[in-house]
Amino acid sequence: MAHYRDLLARIDALLRPTLGEGRVADYIPELAKVAPDQFGMAIATPNGEVETVGQAATPFSVQSISKLFALVLAIQTEGDDLWARVGREPSGAPFNALIQLDAEKGHPRNPFINAGALVVSDVLCSHYAVPENAVAQFLSRLEGRRLIHFDERVARSERDHCGRNAAMLHLMQSYGNIRNPVDQVLGAYCRQCAIEMTCEELARAVTFLACGGRDPRTGEQILPAAHAKRVNALMLTCGTYDAAGDFAFRIGLPVKSGVGGGIVAVMPNRCGVCVWSPALDRAGNSQAGARALELLTTHTGWTIF
Amino acid sequence: MAHYRDLLARIDALLRPTLGEGRVADYIPELAKVAPDQFGMAIATPNGEVETVGQAATPFSVQSISKLFALVLAIQTEGDDLWARVGREPSGAPFNALIQLDAEKGHPRNPFINAGALVVSDVLCSHYAVPENAVAQFLSRLEGRRLIHFDERVARSERDHCGRNAAMLHLMQSYGNIRNPVDQVLGAYCRQCAIEMTCEELARAVTFLACGGRDPRTGEQILPAAHAKRVNALMLTCGTYDAAGDFAFRIGLPVKSGVGGGIVAVMPNRCGVCVWSPALDRAGNSQAGARALELLTTHTGWTIF
Amino acid sequence: MAHYRDLLARIDALLRPTLGEGRVADYIPELAKVAPDQFGMAIATPNGEVETVGQAATPFSVQSISKLFALVLAIQTEGDDLWARVGREPSGAPFNALIQLDAEKGHPRNPFINAGALVVSDVLCSHYAVPENAVAQFLSRLEGRRLIHFDERVARSERDHCGRNAAMLHLMQSYGNIRNPVDQVLGAYCRQCAIEMTCEELARAVTFLACGGRDPRTGEQILPAAHAKRVNALMLTCGTYDAAGDFAFRIGLPVKSGVGGGIVAVMPNRCGVCVWSPALDRAGNSQAGARALELLTTHTGWTIF
Amino acid sequence: MAHYRDLLARIDALLRPTLGEGRVADYIPELAKVAPDQFGMAIATPNGEVETVGQAATPFSVQSISKLFALVLAIQTEGDDLWARVGREPSGAPFNALIQLDAEKGHPRNPFINAGALVVSDVLCSHYAVPENAVAQFLSRLEGRRLIHFDERVARSERDHCGRNAAMLHLMQSYGNIRNPVDQVLGAYCRQCAIEMTCEELARAVTFLACGGRDPRTGEQILPAAHAKRVNALMLTCGTYDAAGDFAFRIGLPVKSGVGGGIVAVMPNRCGVCVWSPALDRAGNSQAGARALELLTTHTGWTIF
Repeated sequence: MAHYRDLLARIDALLRPTLGEGRVADYIPELAKVAPDQFGMAIATPNGEVETVGQAATPFSVQSISKLFALVLAIQTEGDDLWARVGREPSGAPFNALIQLDAEKGHPRNPFINAGALVVSDVLCSHYAVPENAVAQFLSRLEGRRLIHFDERVARSERDHCGRNAAMLHLMQSYGNIRNPVDQVLGAYCRQCAIEMTCEELARAVTFLACGGRDPRTGEQILPAAHAKRVNALMLTCGTYDAAGDFAFRIGLPVKSGVGGGIVAVMPNRCGVCVWSPALDRAGNSQAGARALELLTTHTGWTIF
Repeated sequence: MAHYRDLLARIDALLRPTLGEGRVADYIPELAKVAPDQFGMAIATPNGEVETVGQAATPFSVQSISKLFALVLAIQTEGDDLWARVGREPSGAPFNALIQLDAEKGHPRNPFINAGALVVSDVLCSHYAVPENAVAQFLSRLEGRRLIHFDERVARSERDHCGRNAAMLHLMQSYGNIRNPVDQVLGAYCRQCAIEMTCEELARAVTFLACGGRDPRTGEQILPAAHAKRVNALMLTCGTYDAAGDFAFRIGLPVKSGVGGGIVAVMPNRCGVCVWSPALDRAGNSQAGARALELLTTHTGWTIF
Repeated sequence: MAHYRDLLARIDALLRPTLGEGRVADYIPELAKVAPDQFGMAIATPNGEVETVGQAATPFSVQSISKLFALVLAIQTEGDDLWARVGREPSGAPFNALIQLDAEKGHPRNPFINAGALVVSDVLCSHYAVPENAVAQFLSRLEGRRLIHFDERVARSERDHCGRNAAMLHLMQSYGNIRNPVDQVLGAYCRQCAIEMTCEELARAVTFLACGGRDPRTGEQILPAAHAKRVNALMLTCGTYDAAGDFAFRIGLPVKSGVGGGIVAVMPNRCGVCVWSPALDRAGNSQAGARALELLTTHTGWTIF
Repeated sequence: MAHYRDLLARIDALLRPTLGEGRVADYIPELAKVAPDQFGMAIATPNGEVETVGQAATPFSVQSISKLFALVLAIQTEGDDLWARVGREPSGAPFNALIQLDAEKGHPRNPFINAGALVVSDVLCSHYAVPENAVAQFLSRLEGRRLIHFDERVARSERDHCGRNAAMLHLMQSYGNIRNPVDQVLGAYCRQCAIEMTCEELARAVTFLACGGRDPRTGEQILPAAHAKRVNALMLTCGTYDAAGDFAFRIGLPVKSGVGGGIVAVMPNRCGVCVWSPALDRAGNSQAGARALELLTTHTGWTIF
């Protein structure tokens, strides 16, 4: 693990001077208040060790990273039936999210675009009394240490700025692809996005995806190996919205990002990674985070290709 | 007026054998129950006379025809300020209603597509405690005879099948173009669509648009003449969704149609017309109704062009 | 006619101070060289008189106004069969011209958008050895005085900047809606756009559309009355691209505009009008030209509505 | 290699009964004549051995598989400058190819959609006198044995049915992203698609992508290792049009398909694969070919995830 520590230190040293370049997410006021020049990174190995650098113990808003864990829960409850309600293709472009959803009769392209994540939330609403708590409990079980915390101000702020998500829910409902009340699904979704975690915790939480679906800490098989591989495939093709091709090209690992500035990555058979820095690039991914992952793969030679 | 009576009789005779061709609207169950082979027509002149044929005294669901009268009320209260919130261009295509609304930042193309009519409803919500009653009272004042009736089953049925309208409202709200609660606007809109009137009543109700905005019965100036002409222009370019060009080409009069099978038409300086037959063509306009207007203009030579 | 002279003088006086506001078309270099602050206007009556003001005798590039006369020729040769190959609905939006053309399988919305005008050119290519000359001869016959002139530099400039039109032709050809070689159709279309005429000439040339299709000078029935009315309807709903609704609303007359700054208008049963001023508004219509027509209709009360 | 032979035999036995399900490509007449129930497969290892089953020695039309090798040549000549002219993101949807290309100002999403492959052809036109021969020579060098053959009837047939490609070239030219004459680029592209090869040859030809860019037969470094990995990433995210997500999910290997029924695949550090069966699924990929790759990865456990 010592070489990981050195590597993280070198990455940190290289990136420190550039921190804050880009823009903090400002679509909800609470996120706009976060200081942009923070940076943390963590690598968690199957044997339970975690190496970190920078602000890896600072909690941040996971935002869309929560979609990954909600998806895993939905696969646990629905299995392959889930794919009758949501696709697994890259969506192509954010600007046509609504027309695509409409042209394809309320069937979202994949579970990582908002429309697809809302269907996943609807699935969880059918199985759990409080779906966002189910996601939080799942995360605390994976992470192994503490209760997961919601930032209630962020959750409320999300709820106040969710007109477009409400529009997509109503549209999907009109096509019969939403089964619970729109307000309930929207509430669960907004609170799930407001979960707060640290790099260290998230790196541990994704490690099972590097281990064929088995949680290395507890030995529990979270997902069958074949399903875990498929989740990795989805992360690669759809994990960073319309920059997925560019991430595959530059970084070559399955990743999932959030507008809170976090990115989780999986190096199969080797480790889980989480990096966080709030300033975003134009595609909405952490600018320093993407750069850190690029440095990591360049120095280690890690790639799935 | 005798020649109108003869003319209507001839149109009726020509169309009787074809009644029922096309399909009754079935997007809400209540409308799907209407017998398709009904037909009525009425011509109302400025001097207060009305000539009718067929089932011109049978009440039917006005549906989108109500958008015309709601628009007139909104112009009365807002004047030209209204056009900052809704455009006056043909929309081009129904299939991209949502993408267009999104691309144009929640500003609907015109007040006769659903998105625009919802903005008009929102305007009325800001001015009237019960906007749908304001529309109904306006209609009864224009029509001069009776209380306007809502079909409550149709209203409820509309409310149960309005996912797409809810989607558009939430989207426009996210762009700041809806000022009242989505549920309130949607409720007013759905009830307004469920107003029931007869051909005879509707022919009288549109006559002020043939008279430079002045109600010929009461002498009241409903709209300034310039505004009334503009409403006629909107009816011509946008009154029959994506068949407006075809109606202008074949019929050449300002019209507004509804999926209940009604169509109102205006022959400037001459008369108001209403025709009703529930079976619709592929564009959603009354098939026999459009044919009746075509026969009317062919026989009279009426056209604005 | 004296009152027309006074009226034109008043319009000229009102508009002179604002001439040059807007932008001259610059998509081809030759058009960009035209001085923006020119203005001319002409009214031609059925009895053969023409009243003018300003630079009504200065030739300008008719550009898309030629589409109107090409359409009339195509109706003469094809009659109603033409409408199997081109629609008569407003297109809604320029930004989706290609997607719409593709989604609708190479069938353009109307003969005044570029795609539709290219189909009209293809029709003329099937009937005339040199279609652009047929258009020019038709115009000189209507106008009654001189040979029509092409600006060869504009024609060449058009030809060098027609990638998008070539793209649409190839797309329509792949759907079987173009029957002559793409290069031939494109050449005819580009030369037709480069015809040069004056306000005075164009006002006379459109007068037959105000006279039920009969040329008042020669008595020749150019089009059957019913067809002439329909051409007027098309001008109203589709004559100014995506500003047709706004023109109908503000001006209320059938019109056809070109990016050379010309606009022709028809007041049924009364006169033909042409106005020219090269500086364009954002929709690509002459800014002073539209304003002049608005003043004309306000002062005369002319409107078809 | 014996186990590969057994494995291929088992796959062949499993698939034989289903061969011919799906539809042979029929957009050009020549392809429509191919017997649908053919099947061949080949695995080529870095040590130069090739194991095959079925009709692995039957030449077929490579079609879009040629885009992969044209891309490699273009990277050789342009390096990273290529990416200023073509993106590397999944395109999302075939139906909006033209609108996307237009909205993104003639910059294609990736080099494997037609628009992107046409830009690659344009790049090759700037470097090679006869670009399609350069592709063929590159393939014969990689394959190591014979001259590559063009099916001239297929090439002519392609040329006769390329209206949509011509449309895209003209559109991109109008945005300045095509530098050679449209006819020349189109000719090179159509002939390149008409190259004929066998499974055995194509499996050998892609092996360098499994070996960090080094041709295992000759030791030549075709591409730097980092670039080879990136080509694999592009194959995974964009190699099968709008089924890339599904292929990543089900098969988990970089692949490139063609409508001739061929699919090449890369298992990094292990082997190159080619499978061929002409009947296609709805997304235009070989139905038996995709199933064969799925069986291969299931039995071997191969996946990059």
